[in-house]
Amino acid sequence: MAYTGRLRKVKTISWQNNKLIIIDQTRLPGQLRYLCIDNLKTMFMAIKEMKIRGAPALAAAGACAVVLGIRKSKAKKYLDFKKELDKVVAHIGSSRPTAVNLFWGLERMVKQAQYNSNKPVKKIKEILLKESKAIIQEDSLICRKIAREGARLIKKGDNILTICNAGILATIDYGTALGVIYESKKQGKNIRVFACETRPLLQGARLTTWELKKMRVKVTLICDNMAASLMENKKIDKVITGADRVAANGDVANKIGTYNMAVLAKFHNIPFYVAAPLSSFDFKLKTGKDIPIEQRDKKEVLSLFFKQPIAPKNVNVINPAFDITPHNLITAIITEKGIVRPADKANIKRIVNLK
Amino acid sequence: MAYTGRLRKVKTISWQNNKLIIIDQTRLPGQLRYLCIDNLKTMFMAIKEMKIRGAPALAAAGACAVVLGIRKSKAKKYLDFKKELDKVVAHIGSSRPTAVNLFWGLERMVKQAQYNSNKPVKKIKEILLKESKAIIQEDSLICRKIAREGARLIKKGDNILTICNAGILATIDYGTALGVIYESKKQGKNIRVFACETRPLLQGARLTTWELKKMRVKVTLICDNMAASLMENKKIDKVITGADRVAANGDVANKIGTYNMAVLAKFHNIPFYVAAPLSSFDFKLKTGKDIPIEQRDKKEVLSLFFKQPIAPKNVNVINPAFDITPHNLITAIITEKGIVRPADKANIKRIVNLK
Repeated sequence: MAYTGRLRKVKTISWQNNKLIIIDQTRLPGQLRYLCIDNLKTMFMAIKEMKIRGAPALAAAGACAVVLGIRKSKAKKYLDFKKELDKVVAHIGSSRPTAVNLFWGLERMVKQAQYNSNKPVKKIKEILLKESKAIIQEDSLICRKIAREGARLIKKGDNILTICNAGILATIDYGTALGVIYESKKQGKNIRVFACETRPLLQGARLTTWELKKMRVKVTLICDNMAASLMENKKIDKVITGADRVAANGDVANKIGTYNMAVLAKFHNIPFYVAAPLSSFDFKLKTGKDIPIEQRDKKEVLSLFFKQPIAPKNVNVINPAFDITPHNLITAIITEKGIVRPADKANIKRIVNLK
Repeated sequence: MAYTGRLRKVKTISWQNNKLIIIDQTRLPGQLRYLCIDNLKTMFMAIKEMKIRGAPALAAAGACAVVLGIRKSKAKKYLDFKKELDKVVAHIGSSRPTAVNLFWGLERMVKQAQYNSNKPVKKIKEILLKESKAIIQEDSLICRKIAREGARLIKKGDNILTICNAGILATIDYGTALGVIYESKKQGKNIRVFACETRPLLQGARLTTWELKKMRVKVTLICDNMAASLMENKKIDKVITGADRVAANGDVANKIGTYNMAVLAKFHNIPFYVAAPLSSFDFKLKTGKDIPIEQRDKKEVLSLFFKQPIAPKNVNVINPAFDITPHNLITAIITEKGIVRPADKANIKRIVNLK
């Protein structure tokens, strides 16, 4: 079910009358279309097809999907309910393997259920709904903290390169990498953003330029392969990206092309920043080599949104959705608890343990 | 005028019954459509709109366009004819500013006219037609020489990355960078090509995969921003590209994204080769900084072939068609007279002066 009525404020995901309202991001920038979702099957496909995407938003999306998946459970006893819950959680987790935030959101829901296992199942369901709402609300606050931390790194007049979309549409309503940009603009720093279009799904062209224009930030769209030339011509002062998963040593998995940017930034002596909430950190993984990389459908490369073909049929394709940027190419990671610089194991540990 | 009848052999450009036959490369890979051109206006637009493209092919295209432009001249005296010729040549030269081969082709025609200025205009016209045919024929031979030289650099089992299309479609019938690949395959070296799709006009996705499949070379299509990740994962042994213009010091202008590849190759210790005929060298230009870079229509970035929009309307765009790779990032330049290694001024001079 979908409606196209305008909402006052862009909100990536929210609960309204027990239904989940998400922006269908595959329709942007042509159409701002909200989907009204009341069942797990639809929500699962929305995540898989990237109607909702972005690491932080996936934490909320995963948690909300749990609510949709278990609210019709007829289980009376906790153990029966828990069995259903585990099944639902495993199913949701299979939708997107790389962004750890999805698993972080799912885990939080499971923990909340376990913590309240002595309560009636009906009550647990209420608690889980509340928890999903808390995750949504916390994300807003965390993004604002990241933005304030990151803005300290930005100078007046900076030209900032970004890839994919780590903005409002990737979170609840402010963004990580783009949050830093919004905060810098608010502080009166006259900045310009260069947005890599981000093949194959063009999140930079479709989403980042759309929301930056909406937020009145100066933005110039480039093809991914133009970044090196811009850097060489001294047009870029800083690079900021989001992250889909950060390993314990500071290695970062992010949208394919991020590693490319990081190598170029190193070569041209340009600072390379990653903005990410602590929910994107996966301390179970020692290095980036342990991060699973999602391989997506070759049709994403072979055609534009499964419509216009751009290559011969049956040509071989590889389509990794992410790449790994080693921590030694990252100048600093911007988190809600402060800036991790250099982005190494010891510094990450220190930040996490801050009160 | 166009016909879609199959020809036995792909030929990028040829004379047939006093008409110029070119493949409309904007229709590939969907349609192999030949255009039959009998006037300068149509040919000018075909060059400008990249129905025919590729540096070496543009030498022939420019020369043939001259024939179309002057063959209806009513001039009786050489001086009147020369005035018309100069006008036609200047006009053709304005179609694409970066590939020097276009100007090389035009200059050769002018020189031929000057050399024969004592002959009747009718005779000069015949000589110019002959000269355009000679350029077409020579290109085939030169490409084969480049291919043989380059194949010496290729080992059995090499995985080769390329960008844009420097193949049959960029020349007359063999290619420069891809010619090296065809020759290596002929020599029984079991190679695999990774083709960067090459945004915005997708020559890699549309043209390179199409012709490699036709030539039965194993090819895998990737988005431009995936190359770094492939290199990091040891999937690439060599990079080979074409060139649109080579400065006297070995700096190379080539399709946007080439410089990106060169930086990545350097970072990952992968040899980076450029294959180009001597007609691509411009000794008047000391360094790559002097090479004019064509800026193309923003619509190329904002939509796919002016059809499906992929970004909000009115978003700022930059769209340089080429970038400059400094010679110190180039392992060697492969020419018809041999391999220039390192690709510096002294070595280029030496190769040019070889008999």
